[in-house]
Amino acid sequence: MLELSVPEGSEGHLLRAVLDLWPSYLAYIVSFATIGATWLGHNSITHYLHGANTTFLRVNLALLLVVSFLPFPTKLVAEYLGSREDEKVAATILGVTLLAVTSLLSVLWGLALRHQLVHPATGDEEITLLSRRLRPSLALYIVLIVVGWFTPLIAVIGYLVIAFFLIFPFKLGRRQKAEPAVS
Amino acid sequence: MLELSVPEGSEGHLLRAVLDLWPSYLAYIVSFATIGATWLGHNSITHYLHGANTTFLRVNLALLLVVSFLPFPTKLVAEYLGSREDEKVAATILGVTLLAVTSLLSVLWGLALRHQLVHPATGDEEITLLSRRLRPSLALYIVLIVVGWFTPLIAVIGYLVIAFFLIFPFKLGRRQKAEPAVS
Amino acid sequence: MLELSVPEGSEGHLLRAVLDLWPSYLAYIVSFATIGATWLGHNSITHYLHGANTTFLRVNLALLLVVSFLPFPTKLVAEYLGSREDEKVAATILGVTLLAVTSLLSVLWGLALRHQLVHPATGDEEITLLSRRLRPSLALYIVLIVVGWFTPLIAVIGYLVIAFFLIFPFKLGRRQKAEPAVS
Amino acid sequence: MLELSVPEGSEGHLLRAVLDLWPSYLAYIVSFATIGATWLGHNSITHYLHGANTTFLRVNLALLLVVSFLPFPTKLVAEYLGSREDEKVAATILGVTLLAVTSLLSVLWGLALRHQLVHPATGDEEITLLSRRLRPSLALYIVLIVVGWFTPLIAVIGYLVIAFFLIFPFKLGRRQKAEPAVS
Repeated sequence: MLELSVPEGSEGHLLRAVLDLWPSYLAYIVSFATIGATWLGHNSITHYLHGANTTFLRVNLALLLVVSFLPFPTKLVAEYLGSREDEKVAATILGVTLLAVTSLLSVLWGLALRHQLVHPATGDEEITLLSRRLRPSLALYIVLIVVGWFTPLIAVIGYLVIAFFLIFPFKLGRRQKAEPAVS
Repeated sequence: MLELSVPEGSEGHLLRAVLDLWPSYLAYIVSFATIGATWLGHNSITHYLHGANTTFLRVNLALLLVVSFLPFPTKLVAEYLGSREDEKVAATILGVTLLAVTSLLSVLWGLALRHQLVHPATGDEEITLLSRRLRPSLALYIVLIVVGWFTPLIAVIGYLVIAFFLIFPFKLGRRQKAEPAVS
Repeated sequence: MLELSVPEGSEGHLLRAVLDLWPSYLAYIVSFATIGATWLGHNSITHYLHGANTTFLRVNLALLLVVSFLPFPTKLVAEYLGSREDEKVAATILGVTLLAVTSLLSVLWGLALRHQLVHPATGDEEITLLSRRLRPSLALYIVLIVVGWFTPLIAVIGYLVIAFFLIFPFKLGRRQKAEPAVS
Repeated sequence: MLELSVPEGSEGHLLRAVLDLWPSYLAYIVSFATIGATWLGHNSITHYLHGANTTFLRVNLALLLVVSFLPFPTKLVAEYLGSREDEKVAATILGVTLLAVTSLLSVLWGLALRHQLVHPATGDEEITLLSRRLRPSLALYIVLIVVGWFTPLIAVIGYLVIAFFLIFPFKLGRRQKAEPAVS
């Protein structure tokens, strides 16, 4: 996803060089969490499918293309976060890429519903739950892209927060059912 | 497939450096689309097989070798598109590699048919459809390789168009059947 | 995991350059063995599960994140083992990462037991065996992290020894049962 | 496996730079073919297994370690084939690694047979066939390692030939059975 590396000439002050890499760690975790959330969402979608059509496969391939592209904006943020002007560009490119990933995942689920690719036995409640989970957070990403033009660091942390919420969406509601005998 | 990277010394003009990478993005998408098309075609072939023989495995391994080689010409096009003389060499090497990939996939299907490796229950219509889909576009690739010697950019865009047609070949005909209740 | 590479300008004395890479080989094997042990342990855990809850998935994702991070401290040890001061930093970062990997794996099994995610048909003996196998060697890792601040090389070799014991824990006891007719 | 790359400063003579990489292509194909042969052999072994013991898993892990190491000697041959003295070192390291891969695969099958891990229903004829296929070509590799000290290029080509024979061992005998109705 992102090859972490201390710059050459770090001899004698390795600890500081490792600590100075914090934008890399942040960018790494943002990408990791977003890909994790996307993978979980994609798994949920294909779990309910009983078929696919050409349009679905086309959007699926576009999603794969954008996810494969993600390491590049991740590297840009890792390298340029902290350097005036350039960090705005890097954060914006990352934000737009993350927006594209989430939007495509949402479009995929929308296609499945509209084109009746979802297995008929799926309950309405499950469909509603997944729909809410995959709601692309469009508005949030757009807000953060604008924020990122002024304070890129806040935007990148915001992308991390969105990913965490996409990963653990049923936190409160589900616990009671799945853990009947927690000590 | 291709590690995207802005050149060192892009500080202060990152946006321009990112935009200047357009040959990389183009090369990246061409390889992505061709590998996607090959993967779909290969999946279709193995779906119909009920066995394999030594010759089939040999050609299959050769296909895998050429696909593994694809990142190299992709990188050549990404780096040299736009630089006189060199761009012709890069585009030609990419074209020949893509021609080899598609030809080997077609040979694979030909072998399966001729050596009776296809499951007997497979309908003639399905075989004809797949045969047409895998038709190697030999002529088209050869034309583009020649074109690439004069205008490499047009050739590379042409390789992208071929890949898209290989990915979505049944576009018009199939939609009516697979989407019976599109709103 | 770790891209091995002789430094540029090794022409004329390649053998010595290859031998000089011994810290890389050592770091490579430590990471390889630890990831192998983690993978085996993780397989054992999921083998006994009949379900998962949100907390389990969260810890699982954290484990994956830390394992994905392992190549970085591996590279630090490979590059800085042997250079005074820096090697202590590198060995400590590796030790802390390995401690995190093993702890998270142990937490995962603890969660499965406490939240009753383990299949009810699993025998108590099997649970005890796996618990002992996954015991995180916390104390050992902490001792080695301290040792590493004085003699990093010993610590790194110690990490290798721990990994081997995590991979082959039932060595003596199990052999008699699994190999009833060894000639 | 091996990242192919033309050296910087190849502008204006890209074709020659690409052709000058022939040692890379050769090394790439040798590794590709050997890994392919190992993978096929490993598949055959696990196909006949009905269990595994600690010793088997230990050797299996060692095999995986050596295969993961293969890209390094591949790169050494790619870079140093053609440069006096160094090319002998590179070819020898590659040869020893390939010998280790094939030996470990053979040891794995030997363990399966001696420890009765092979499924009882497996016919003697099948066992004999696989044993012959996995015979490690020990002698051949040792001869080529010695040859490589004098003429490295011949040794590397020899490694390629061995891999091809390991991939397609039943060439003549099997064709008649598997292709009953070749037109």
